[in-house]
Formats: sequence, C-alpha cells, structure tokens
Amino acid sequence: MRVLGIDPGLTRCGMGVVEGSVGRPLTLVDVNVIRTSADLPIAERLVTIERGIDAWLDEHRPDAVAVERVFARSDSSTIMGTAQASGIALVAAARRGLPIALHTPSEVKAAVSGSGRADKAQVGAMVTRILRLDAAPKPADAADALALAITHIWRGGAQARIDAALAAARGRSR
Amino acid sequence: MRVLGIDPGLTRCGMGVVEGSVGRPLTLVDVNVIRTSADLPIAERLVTIERGIDAWLDEHRPDAVAVERVFARSDSSTIMGTAQASGIALVAAARRGLPIALHTPSEVKAAVSGSGRADKAQVGAMVTRILRLDAAPKPADAADALALAITHIWRGGAQARIDAALAAARGRSR
Repeated sequence: MRVLGIDPGLTRCGMGVVEGSVGRPLTLVDVNVIRTSADLPIAERLVTIERGIDAWLDEHRPDAVAVERVFARSDSSTIMGTAQASGIALVAAARRGLPIALHTPSEVKAAVSGSGRADKAQVGAMVTRILRLDAAPKPADAADALALAITHIWRGGAQARIDAALAAARGRSR
Repeated sequence: MRVLGIDPGLTRCGMGVVEGSVGRPLTLVDVNVIRTSADLPIAERLVTIERGIDAWLDEHRPDAVAVERVFARSDSSTIMGTAQASGIALVAAARRGLPIALHTPSEVKAAVSGSGRADKAQVGAMVTRILRLDAAPKPADAADALALAITHIWRGGAQARIDAALAAARGRSR
C-alpha cells in the first residue's frame, strides 16, 4: 500500500509518500515540504498548500492519506494556521474519496520509536533507519510526514488484523 | 457591492449575502447555515462545508468575501473545527480570486451595534433593523454571517475613502 503522510503547517507543510506493508521493508517514494511566506495573505498561503497537496495526490496516487491530528493547546501562535492547513489536507483527500486517518504526534512517535515522548532527532533517526536512507530527511516536517505514513501502514495493518479477528469472532458467535 | 459573509463552524457554518454600499440601505440577498453532523468524519464534514460555500459562490457571485477571524483562545473544544472550516472558506474564495477580508468578532459587533461587547441578541436585533427584516435571522450563526457582510461593506467603504484620501495626499506631495 502507498500512503501519503501530511504534517500540516502554514509555514512548512511536510508531505511524505511511503510504500510497503506490515512485516516487509518500507520504501520512501518521495518527500517534500511546501513552504509559504508569512508575508502573504493567509488565504493565498492556504491555496499554495492546497495546490501542493493536490499535485502530489495526482502524481503519487496514494491508497490512503495520514494527517497529523492537531490539538488546541500549547504553541497558540501557530496552532490556528496548522488547523487551517490540516483542514485543507483533509478536504483534498476526502474530495478524491481516499481513506483518511488522523494520528496524534504521540501515536506517531510511539509507532516509529517505541516511545510516545521521543524527540524530533529520535523520530528523524528512526525514519532514516526504517526507510534505509543515507541521512535523516530535513527539515523535521519532512521526517514527521514520513513518520506519519509509516505509522499509518503499521497501525493500519494491525487494525486490519484486529478487524478481521473481530469479524471472525462475531461469525463464530452467531 | 455584494458581499458574502461567512461565520465558520463545523456544526453550523453561517453564510449571508448582503448587497449595498456605504450610505445607502443594505439589502439581504440570501442567508443560510450549512449544518454537518458530529457523527461524520471530520474530512466529510469539511467537504460538505466546501460544497456549500462553492455552491453559494456560484449562485450569488459576490464581489468580496468576509470571514470571521478566529483566535486560539476560549472554547477550545470547537476551536480546531472552526479554524479548519475557516481555512476551507478562505481557500474557496481565494481560488476564485475574490477579495477576502477577515474581521474579528469585536469589529463586527462594533460595526453593527456600536459596541465591541454586544451580545448575540443585540447583534441579531441590529442586523434585523439594518436589513429591514421582519424577524432576527436564526440561528445566531446566520445573523453573524450577515453582520460580517454588513461590516465588510461599511468598513470597506471607509477604507476605500481613506485609501483615496491618502493617494490624493501623496499626489499633492509629489
């Protein structure tokens, strides 16, 4: 399966495409960061982000999109822009009927590093190792987008197995 | 000039179209609230909002769009959805190259009622009077969207006069 991970942000919006399945080596397909200048009106910045995401959906045809779940806490100077960018990402994927999953930062950190409290450097190092890259993707938004895609493949696989087991159990109990 | 005011929200997104100019009576063109169920995935809800706004931009062909400026404070349970909906509204307008203005709730209250601290009922009553309606538009999101459009026409007019005066002054100083 091919997953587009999106780490939403107004100044830097990370996008990472990963291919693979649970239990097999994962492959980096492409990674990029959409940058928009704080000097531009917010609406123009969001349109640039929308175009960037749409272009990647066209080019990479992912089977699913994983977007970081944003919370109304901390860092309130950028949180509104992050929320707006995440809305754009969700709509771009939903318009195409793609399955969408939201993963929290802790879920992503736990999935790739084993700890929900891993720092940026640890996430970058694990993404580098998991995708067998020569160096950690830069900036951190790029690594985070790839970590989201990896998380989605791994969790999605687990979820699919849980769903299958539950369906089988329900079948037996009928 | 014809202005579409948008009071962004995930559960209720108000849209109001007002026509007129500064110093003349304003007219209500249309008002509506897009509602989406909290039972649906966020991405689907945002797509419904996008479709609703796009349909109105097609139908009413406004000259400008006024969107409520959202802040990261208070009411944090709904603020992320509001921010995401506002992002959708901004992109829908920007994609069409329409002028966009963001007005804060206080600016809107001050413009229609004379007080930045007016309550919902006062805003509703003033919108009713300004647009010569038989009753206050319901729900409050509908009245707020109309108040945004009214604010935009009134403030836009003032801003246009200030810009013209400044341009004239610059012309004289050359």
